[in-house]
Amino acid sequence: MDKRYKAYKGNIIYSQDKDTLISKENSYIMVFNGMVKGICKQLPEDFPEENIVDWGKRLIIPGFCDMHVHAPQFLQRGIGMDRELLDWLNTYTYPNEAKFADKDHAKKIYSAFVDELLRNGTLHVNCFPSIHYGASEILFQILEQRGLFAFTGKLNMDQNSPSYYIEDTEQSIRDTETFILQHQNTKNVKTSIVPRFSITCSEKLLAGLGELVKKYEVPVHSHMCEAVNEMKVCKELFPNYKNGADIFYKNNLLGETPTIMAHCIFMDDDVLERMDNSNCMAVHCPDATANINAGGIMPVKKLLDMGIHLAIGSDIGSGANFSIARGIASTIQHSKIRNMFDSEWEAVNLAEAFYMATRSGGRFFNQVGAFEEGYHFNALVIDDSNMYHEMELTPIERLERFCYAGDDRNICMRYILGTEVKIV
Amino acid sequence: MDKRYKAYKGNIIYSQDKDTLISKENSYIMVFNGMVKGICKQLPEDFPEENIVDWGKRLIIPGFCDMHVHAPQFLQRGIGMDRELLDWLNTYTYPNEAKFADKDHAKKIYSAFVDELLRNGTLHVNCFPSIHYGASEILFQILEQRGLFAFTGKLNMDQNSPSYYIEDTEQSIRDTETFILQHQNTKNVKTSIVPRFSITCSEKLLAGLGELVKKYEVPVHSHMCEAVNEMKVCKELFPNYKNGADIFYKNNLLGETPTIMAHCIFMDDDVLERMDNSNCMAVHCPDATANINAGGIMPVKKLLDMGIHLAIGSDIGSGANFSIARGIASTIQHSKIRNMFDSEWEAVNLAEAFYMATRSGGRFFNQVGAFEEGYHFNALVIDDSNMYHEMELTPIERLERFCYAGDDRNICMRYILGTEVKIV
Repeated sequence: MDKRYKAYKGNIIYSQDKDTLISKENSYIMVFNGMVKGICKQLPEDFPEENIVDWGKRLIIPGFCDMHVHAPQFLQRGIGMDRELLDWLNTYTYPNEAKFADKDHAKKIYSAFVDELLRNGTLHVNCFPSIHYGASEILFQILEQRGLFAFTGKLNMDQNSPSYYIEDTEQSIRDTETFILQHQNTKNVKTSIVPRFSITCSEKLLAGLGELVKKYEVPVHSHMCEAVNEMKVCKELFPNYKNGADIFYKNNLLGETPTIMAHCIFMDDDVLERMDNSNCMAVHCPDATANINAGGIMPVKKLLDMGIHLAIGSDIGSGANFSIARGIASTIQHSKIRNMFDSEWEAVNLAEAFYMATRSGGRFFNQVGAFEEGYHFNALVIDDSNMYHEMELTPIERLERFCYAGDDRNICMRYILGTEVKIV
Repeated sequence: MDKRYKAYKGNIIYSQDKDTLISKENSYIMVFNGMVKGICKQLPEDFPEENIVDWGKRLIIPGFCDMHVHAPQFLQRGIGMDRELLDWLNTYTYPNEAKFADKDHAKKIYSAFVDELLRNGTLHVNCFPSIHYGASEILFQILEQRGLFAFTGKLNMDQNSPSYYIEDTEQSIRDTETFILQHQNTKNVKTSIVPRFSITCSEKLLAGLGELVKKYEVPVHSHMCEAVNEMKVCKELFPNYKNGADIFYKNNLLGETPTIMAHCIFMDDDVLERMDNSNCMAVHCPDATANINAGGIMPVKKLLDMGIHLAIGSDIGSGANFSIARGIASTIQHSKIRNMFDSEWEAVNLAEAFYMATRSGGRFFNQVGAFEEGYHFNALVIDDSNMYHEMELTPIERLERFCYAGDDRNICMRYILGTEVKIV
């Protein structure tokens, strides 16, 4: 056996598929050059002891995927939560995001933001930036320096936005193309095209961005079918389109390349048909949905059963919490509340929500979110010794408890490609 | 001015009533002998400097009230959340609670439990114990030693319980009477009568406990109208009563003395009439309601507007989190989700939820939960400097952010009667 192999020992958990949590007690994850080679109960006899990292009774799980988060809104999470979405955007969000014109400000806040992601065990992230080229470049660089697997780009918005926070259409498209070209030979961070949402993007802007998608084959990240009010405004602004999905689709911004759409709460058959595409992923953001009173809850269980690709997003700042573990618990809770008022909407269980937060979200990246051969060893070690072990608990019960009652203090180690992640 | 006055400086917030948050920036809470005397913007000229405690820009708020929490279930929070209530009780709760027959176990776990309450800013608490006299006594003593304002007693259950965790009816009543008599001259902790819920209590037990309520004028703490299944079983077991409230009422366990009823989700006009009583308080437990899929959400806004006394409970262990600040955010979120599916059920706002968690819950105790003259100075100091202050925020916005995105690390000081609380 190659001497460069490492073996990480602990109680190992990952999702095999949406229904199945694999739990391997007191086992070793074999890692070579940052990549998982397999899991075994016993090491080969000649395995060098110095290459064993023994985490004892602790849990080893895949790092989380936060598939929808607004980096600049880090500063405004948990504020103005009693306001309606468009009022909240005008009062807090746009003035806050506009300040990222200042690169020093961006550097300070984005460093803290990435730290907060890592602290909470998010190793894979899909970020919304601001409209500013400079600040977006800084966010990209910080993510790359810190080693996260990430997508981000430069935000686009050219209409229905305040005068101090709006772009010229042509300039927005040109800057986006430059951004793509300037960030081509990167390691773990890749460029995505990020139109804010249909309301703030003219048809001309959307068409131009769609051209870039085709030309450079870059992924897309946006919001749609998010709230009753938002959809109404969308319908007025885009009368020639059937719905939010149709607007993106007809402009080559949905399904042409890997596409992440946050929210997707209101999915009629037509929208569903668009999203039922191996390139597409819908991101459930439970806290944000509740906070902005979106008018509905994503039918998570139904979509999972249909095979639609789903993930979980913190949606900082309309969501207030970075923890995707907490997002798992909220996904389950909100699905139960939804079920109370319509028994046809089944509740989501732990296996399904954990799958969304790890392996399913991870498919947007390359081989992350599980511990099978060929996956990157991007992992968290969970120390729940402060939660007491007076009851006999299985590793899966301990995982559940961590999601419901734990926090970042229970994450005692983070690995990306087998390397220990440092938090400032 | 008496030299024993102390002045606590900071940004002071408390509820005047359910609709009004009082915010006094850079002001002083004047405290004499642990009691609030008033708030002022400027100190008298001769005020001794050594008696000023300057918390600078930090927030000073009343300590939280957790009005429904199961002390022994501390060990099982966040586990088995995908199970149905009665299945969960049989699989996890009863075996776990039965272990509190061991006093050493009780001492260890209850010490940690009380620490966890304090860490999260809960200074006033209404506890469910186990059926064991010895363990319940230990819980009472620890609460008293640590200085919390609390109610607790000895749990009663004599039917529909597993053979290893059930009481003889007469013995249960006798032990309860002894418990009351043995805990009469206590300081901040008072005895309450704690029948588990109607399902596990025979009519004879309920009647006997009701006699004790009348004889000793002790408060009552139980659950009712909690879940669709639970109410169905109740109806079968007690065919001669109209509903859950009627069972307690007719046995002198509702409204005769101060009465806390957890959950109260399904409130028909009949139940409402019983609860519309200055002695009664209904406790909303948002996390637990979602976790056990109760089948409904308490109509919080409607009850508040009717003048029903409401509080918030963590309901550890069907709720997984000790933080009542987080309970405030969940109360608002779940009310918004409820509103999505029935627009007549209005959402709760920050002022209302904060009121429930402090002043309203506090009325079950004597003068706690606000900073008016005559109130006990039971307070928390909130340090949110780790959350960034790049935006100009009012103290109330910072309070909101703490509730949504903060945790126990943001509580930098706890006072009970003006004395600093030590956490182990």
